[in-house]
Amino acid sequence: MTKNSSNVMALSPNTSNKRETVCIFGTGDFGRALGYKMIQAGYPVVFGSRSTQTSSLIPKDAEVLSHAEAAQKAAIIIIAIQRQHYNFLIPLAEILRGKVLVDISNNLKINQYPESNAEYLAQLVPGAKVVKAFNTVSAWALQSGTLDASRQVFVCGDDMEAKQMVMDIVRALGLTPLDQGSLLAAQEIENYPLQLFPMWKFPILLSLGLVTFFFFYCLTRDVIYPYVNENKDFSFFIAISIPNRICPILALTLLALVYLPGILAAIIQLYRGTKYRLFPDWLDKWMLCRKQLGLVALAFASLHVLYTLVIPIRSFVRWRISSQIVSQALNNKTEPLDNTNAWLSDSYLALGILGFFLFVLLGITSLPSVSNNVNWREFRFVQSKLGYLTLILCTAHTLVYGGKWFLSPSSYRWYLPSAYMLSLIFPCIVLVVKSVLIFPCLDKPLTQIRQGWERNPRYSE
Amino acid sequence: MTKNSSNVMALSPNTSNKRETVCIFGTGDFGRALGYKMIQAGYPVVFGSRSTQTSSLIPKDAEVLSHAEAAQKAAIIIIAIQRQHYNFLIPLAEILRGKVLVDISNNLKINQYPESNAEYLAQLVPGAKVVKAFNTVSAWALQSGTLDASRQVFVCGDDMEAKQMVMDIVRALGLTPLDQGSLLAAQEIENYPLQLFPMWKFPILLSLGLVTFFFFYCLTRDVIYPYVNENKDFSFFIAISIPNRICPILALTLLALVYLPGILAAIIQLYRGTKYRLFPDWLDKWMLCRKQLGLVALAFASLHVLYTLVIPIRSFVRWRISSQIVSQALNNKTEPLDNTNAWLSDSYLALGILGFFLFVLLGITSLPSVSNNVNWREFRFVQSKLGYLTLILCTAHTLVYGGKWFLSPSSYRWYLPSAYMLSLIFPCIVLVVKSVLIFPCLDKPLTQIRQGWERNPRYSE
Amino acid sequence: MTKNSSNVMALSPNTSNKRETVCIFGTGDFGRALGYKMIQAGYPVVFGSRSTQTSSLIPKDAEVLSHAEAAQKAAIIIIAIQRQHYNFLIPLAEILRGKVLVDISNNLKINQYPESNAEYLAQLVPGAKVVKAFNTVSAWALQSGTLDASRQVFVCGDDMEAKQMVMDIVRALGLTPLDQGSLLAAQEIENYPLQLFPMWKFPILLSLGLVTFFFFYCLTRDVIYPYVNENKDFSFFIAISIPNRICPILALTLLALVYLPGILAAIIQLYRGTKYRLFPDWLDKWMLCRKQLGLVALAFASLHVLYTLVIPIRSFVRWRISSQIVSQALNNKTEPLDNTNAWLSDSYLALGILGFFLFVLLGITSLPSVSNNVNWREFRFVQSKLGYLTLILCTAHTLVYGGKWFLSPSSYRWYLPSAYMLSLIFPCIVLVVKSVLIFPCLDKPLTQIRQGWERNPRYSE
Repeated sequence: MTKNSSNVMALSPNTSNKRETVCIFGTGDFGRALGYKMIQAGYPVVFGSRSTQTSSLIPKDAEVLSHAEAAQKAAIIIIAIQRQHYNFLIPLAEILRGKVLVDISNNLKINQYPESNAEYLAQLVPGAKVVKAFNTVSAWALQSGTLDASRQVFVCGDDMEAKQMVMDIVRALGLTPLDQGSLLAAQEIENYPLQLFPMWKFPILLSLGLVTFFFFYCLTRDVIYPYVNENKDFSFFIAISIPNRICPILALTLLALVYLPGILAAIIQLYRGTKYRLFPDWLDKWMLCRKQLGLVALAFASLHVLYTLVIPIRSFVRWRISSQIVSQALNNKTEPLDNTNAWLSDSYLALGILGFFLFVLLGITSLPSVSNNVNWREFRFVQSKLGYLTLILCTAHTLVYGGKWFLSPSSYRWYLPSAYMLSLIFPCIVLVVKSVLIFPCLDKPLTQIRQGWERNPRYSE
Repeated sequence: MTKNSSNVMALSPNTSNKRETVCIFGTGDFGRALGYKMIQAGYPVVFGSRSTQTSSLIPKDAEVLSHAEAAQKAAIIIIAIQRQHYNFLIPLAEILRGKVLVDISNNLKINQYPESNAEYLAQLVPGAKVVKAFNTVSAWALQSGTLDASRQVFVCGDDMEAKQMVMDIVRALGLTPLDQGSLLAAQEIENYPLQLFPMWKFPILLSLGLVTFFFFYCLTRDVIYPYVNENKDFSFFIAISIPNRICPILALTLLALVYLPGILAAIIQLYRGTKYRLFPDWLDKWMLCRKQLGLVALAFASLHVLYTLVIPIRSFVRWRISSQIVSQALNNKTEPLDNTNAWLSDSYLALGILGFFLFVLLGITSLPSVSNNVNWREFRFVQSKLGYLTLILCTAHTLVYGGKWFLSPSSYRWYLPSAYMLSLIFPCIVLVVKSVLIFPCLDKPLTQIRQGWERNPRYSE
Repeated sequence: MTKNSSNVMALSPNTSNKRETVCIFGTGDFGRALGYKMIQAGYPVVFGSRSTQTSSLIPKDAEVLSHAEAAQKAAIIIIAIQRQHYNFLIPLAEILRGKVLVDISNNLKINQYPESNAEYLAQLVPGAKVVKAFNTVSAWALQSGTLDASRQVFVCGDDMEAKQMVMDIVRALGLTPLDQGSLLAAQEIENYPLQLFPMWKFPILLSLGLVTFFFFYCLTRDVIYPYVNENKDFSFFIAISIPNRICPILALTLLALVYLPGILAAIIQLYRGTKYRLFPDWLDKWMLCRKQLGLVALAFASLHVLYTLVIPIRSFVRWRISSQIVSQALNNKTEPLDNTNAWLSDSYLALGILGFFLFVLLGITSLPSVSNNVNWREFRFVQSKLGYLTLILCTAHTLVYGGKWFLSPSSYRWYLPSAYMLSLIFPCIVLVVKSVLIFPCLDKPLTQIRQGWERNPRYSE
C-alpha cells in the first residue's frame, strides 16, 4: 500500500483534506507565478531561497525557507532556477533522496548542451526522481490567467509514479498534461518552445522562391518589355498588377503540390505491389507538410481575390476605361454586346468564385477545433473529394481566363509564354494522372494494396 | 484491495515503475501503429500473431509471440483483427478468461451485422471483459502523430474497471477518452466513423431543392422571357447573374428557417400552457440542425457577397455602362444626381454590409473553440439577439433593394413576381410573429411557462 | 484505507462493477437532464422529490423516492433546487451528515446575495461536504447532447475528496472539470454564467465613444459644410461614405492602442530600472484586454474593406464617373495617364491589402484552437512581430492615401483637418517611440531588466 498510495495521496490524503505541500526552489518570475497558481489550486507552497526575506512579490500564503528546510517539507520540489546554478543542489543530495524534482528550465538555443537540462539534473542528484514539465508554459500566461497560448504541458520522466504526481498537479492547475515517455524525451521537450513553426519552413521557403522567380518573370514581360519595345512606363504595375499575377500562380501551383505527393505515393505503391515498404524520406516529409502547403496556397488565393476586387477602384483602370469610352464617343460608334466575351468573362469569374469558396471551406475544416469534431471519414471526404473539386475549379478558372490567348503567338514576349501558362503545368499533371488512376484497372489493385494485399508477399501473417 | 488496485496499477504498479504490459493480437497497420504509440508512452508491448517471424515493420522494442503466449503476458489484449477472423479466439477462451479484450474494429457499412462487433466478441469469449475503443482513430493519424482529425476516443463496456484501464491507456497516448456507457453503445460507436455529416443532410438536401427551384424560376424570368419576348440572348446570365439571385434568396430563407422553429415552439408552449410535453419529432429534429442551417445560409451569403463584388469587373457590366455613357455623350445630355436613388443604393448596400458582418460574427462564434470559451448567457446573447439583428438587417437590405419595383406590375413577367419577393416570405413571417410574441401579454406567460409554470398542472411536485 | 478508497470507488467499486449511486434532489429541468446523462454514463440515479409520483418526464431507469429515502441511498446528493427552497434541507441535516452535497444553483443577478449559494448551503447543513459544480452547464445542452457552449465545469469546495468525487462524475459525463479551489471561489463561479463578455466591455465602450465622435466630426466636414457653403445635399453620405471614413480610423487607432500599453510598460520599466514593481492598475487592465481591442480593430478593418469594395457599385459613384466621362467627351479632350497618380493609387491599395491580410492572420491565430497549437515563442512572434508589421503597413496605407492633401490648407474645412489625419496620431506615436526603443542603448538595459536585473536592487536573492 505504501508505495502505491503516494500518487493517490496528492488528491485525497488520508490524514487531512488538504493537498500535499509543494516546494519551489527559486523566487524568480516563473517560480512565483507557479507558486501563486498552486496556492489558488489548494496546494500549500513553500519556497526555498538563498535569502529567506519575504519579498512583497512572493504570494502571501507561501512560506520562504532555506533550500534545505523547504525541501524537507515536501515530496515534490520544483526547480525554478537556471541550469547554470544547478550546482548548489549537490550538497543537498541527501535531503533530495527519493524526492520528485521537477525540471522546468528552458535553454536559449536548440540543443545548447550535449544533454538535456533534466538529464543533467538527474546526473547531479542521482537519488532523486527527475520529471520534466512546465517548460512550455510562460510565467506571464500563468499570472494573467489568460493562457492564450497552449494549455498543454509536456511531461516526461523515468519514474511512473513521480510523473503521475506531477501530472496530477498539472491537471489541478487547469492545464493539460501530455505524457511524452521517459526522460530521454526531455531534449525534445526542451527544444519545443524554441521552435519557430518548423512545419511551415519548407512551404514558406518554397513559396518565397517561387514568388521571386515569378516576380522577375512578370517584371520582364509586363514592365521591361513594353518599356524597351514601346517606351511605355508601366512601373506602377509592381504594386498591384504583378502581385495579382504572382498570387494566383502560386495558389494554383501550391494547391497542385498538395495533391502531387498522394499521386506519387499511389504510383510507387502500384509499382512495388505492396504498401509494406517505406516511402522515400522526401516523400514522407512532403506528405506531412501538405496541410501547411494548402494553407499557404489559400493565403495566396485570398490575396488574389483582394487584388482582383480592388481593380475597379484603381486609378489606372478608371483612366483606361474612361479613355476607351471617350474615344468611342468621339468616334461616334456604339459597340454591340459580344456574347462570347460575356460568357467567357462570367464563366471564369464564376469558376474562380466557386473554387475560392471551396478553398476557404477546406481552410476552415483544417482549423484544429473543427477537425476535432469530424470523424475520419468526414475529414477525408472534405480534404480529398472537396480538395480535388477545388483544384479542378481553380484550374478551369485559369484555363477559361486565358482561353483566348492560349498558345497564340502574340502572347509570347521575348519567347516567354504568359505566366499563367506556367501555373497550369502542375495542376494539369496532377489532374491527368489522377484521372488515369481512377480507372478500374488501376484503382482496383491500388485499393487491394492499401488494404494489405501484396503482389509478392515476403512473409506470411 | 486486490480488485481495487488493478486500475491504479496501470498507472503506478507496486512492484516496479513500469507500466503494465499490453498485448496486441494482429500485426496489421492499426495494430502496429497502436503498438508503436504505446511503446512511446512507456508500455511494454507484445504482439500475438499466427507467424512469430519478426517483420521489419513491427516496432523494434516489441516481442512477437503466438497468440496464446502473448495473451498470457498481459491483462489487456487489443484485438486488431477483422471481425470475420474472430473465430480463432474461441479455442483461446480459457486463456482469455478475466482478461480485458479491447475491440477496435470497424465495419464497412452502417449496421452491417445484427449485433455490434464488440457484442459479438463478448458472445464468443464470454469469460473476458470486452471494451470497445479506438475505432474512431486512424492508423495514419497515430503513425504520423499529426492527429488532424479527432483526438476523441469513444469507450464503452460493461465492466467499469476494465473500461477505466482502457481509458487510462487512451489518456497516456495523448488522446481524450469519452465514456459512452455500457457495451450496448458499441453499435453506435461502430457506426460513428461511417457517418458522413449526418446533421448536415437535411440542410444540404433542403438547399439543393431550393436552389433547383429558384434556378428554373430565374431562368424562366431572366433568360427565357427576354429571349421569347424580345429575342435577346442573355444565356450568359447562368454563370453569375442567376447564381447571384439564388444565393441571397437562399441565405435569407435559410436564416429565417433557423429562427422559425423557435417561434413555432413558443406558440406550441403558449397553446399547451406547459413546457412539460414533448415537441413533435420533426420540430425537435429541426431545432437540432439550426446551427447547420445557419452555416449553410452563411455560405450562400458569402457567395452572394463575392458574386456582387465582381459585378464591376464583368465584361457585360462594363459594356452596359460604357454604352450608356456613350449614348449620353452622343445625345449631349448630362444627368443630374438623383438624390433618392443615391440614398436607396447606399442604404441597401450599407444594410447588406452590416448584415453580412453580423452573420460572419455569428459563424465565428459557432466555431467549437470559440463557443467553448463563452458562457451560456453569452452564447445565447450572440445566437439569439445578434441573430435576430442579422435577420432584420438582411430583410431590410432586401426590402430596400427591391423597394422601387416592389409590387409594381412591370416587375411581373408571365405573372411571376420577382424572385426576391419570394425570399421575403419566411423572414417577414418570422419577424412579424416574433414582434407579436414580445408583447408583454404574450411574453410574460411564455417566460413563466419556460420557468416551469403550468396552466393545467397534471402532477404536483 | 476506508476514507481513501471512496474516490477510487466511484470508478472501480470493490463489490460490483457498477458506479456509485447518485441522488438528485429536485425533478426540475436541470435535475432531470443531469439524471438522464448520468444514467447514460452508467450511474444508478435516484431522485428525491416531495411527491414520489413518477412523471413521464423522469428518466425510466431512475427511482423517485422521498428526500430522506433518496439521500440514504447515495454518498453524493445533487441539489437541483432553487436557493429559496434550501430550507427544507435543515430537517434532513442528520441524514446528510458526511454526504457530498453538490450545489448547482445560479442566481438571476451578479452578487445577488451576500454569500454564495454554495456557502449558504454549507451553513444550513454544516455536517455535509458542499461542492459547487455544474452551474455553468445548461439543461438544454445536456439534453440535446450538442453542448455547443462550453464543456468546462468549474468545481470548488473545501473537501478535496468530495471535490474529487464530483470531478470524476464530471469527467464521466464527457465534460471537463476545472478545479477552482476552496468554497470561497463559489461566489465567482456563480457570477460567471451571469457575465456578458466582461473583457469586451472596455474595448466596445471605447469604440462606441470614438465612433460617435468621428461620426459628428465627419458629418460636419462632409455633409454640413458643403450644404452650408455650396448648398449641396450630400446627406446620403451617412449610409456609406461616412462609415467608410470612421471604420478605417477606428481600426488604425485601436490597433495602435493594442501596442501602446506595451510601450508604456517598457518606458516605466526603463525609468524604474526594475521589473519587480507592479504596473499601475489601469495599465494592467489595458494589457489584459489587448486581444479584445485588436479583434474590435479587425472588425472595423473588415467593415472598411467591405465598404471600400462596394464603391464601384454605388449609384452615386457611377453617376460621378459617368458625368466626368461625358463632360470629357463633350469637351473633346483625352487625358493622358497620370503616372504619379497611378503609382499612389496602386501603392495605397496594395499596402492596405497586405495590411488587412496580416491583420486577418493575426485574428486567426488568436482563435483559441489555433493559439493552443503554437508554442509561446511562435505566439509571441505572430502577435508581436507580425502585429507591428501590420501596424506599419496600415499606417503607410493611410499616409500614402492622404499623401497629396496632407497638411495642404484646402483640406481644412472650418479649421477642421481631414479625419484621417486624426487617425494617424496614435499609430505614429507608437511607431516613433518603438523605433526609439529598439536602439541598442535602450534595448539592452530593457532586456536586462526583463531578465531580472535591477538598477537599484532592494533585496538580495
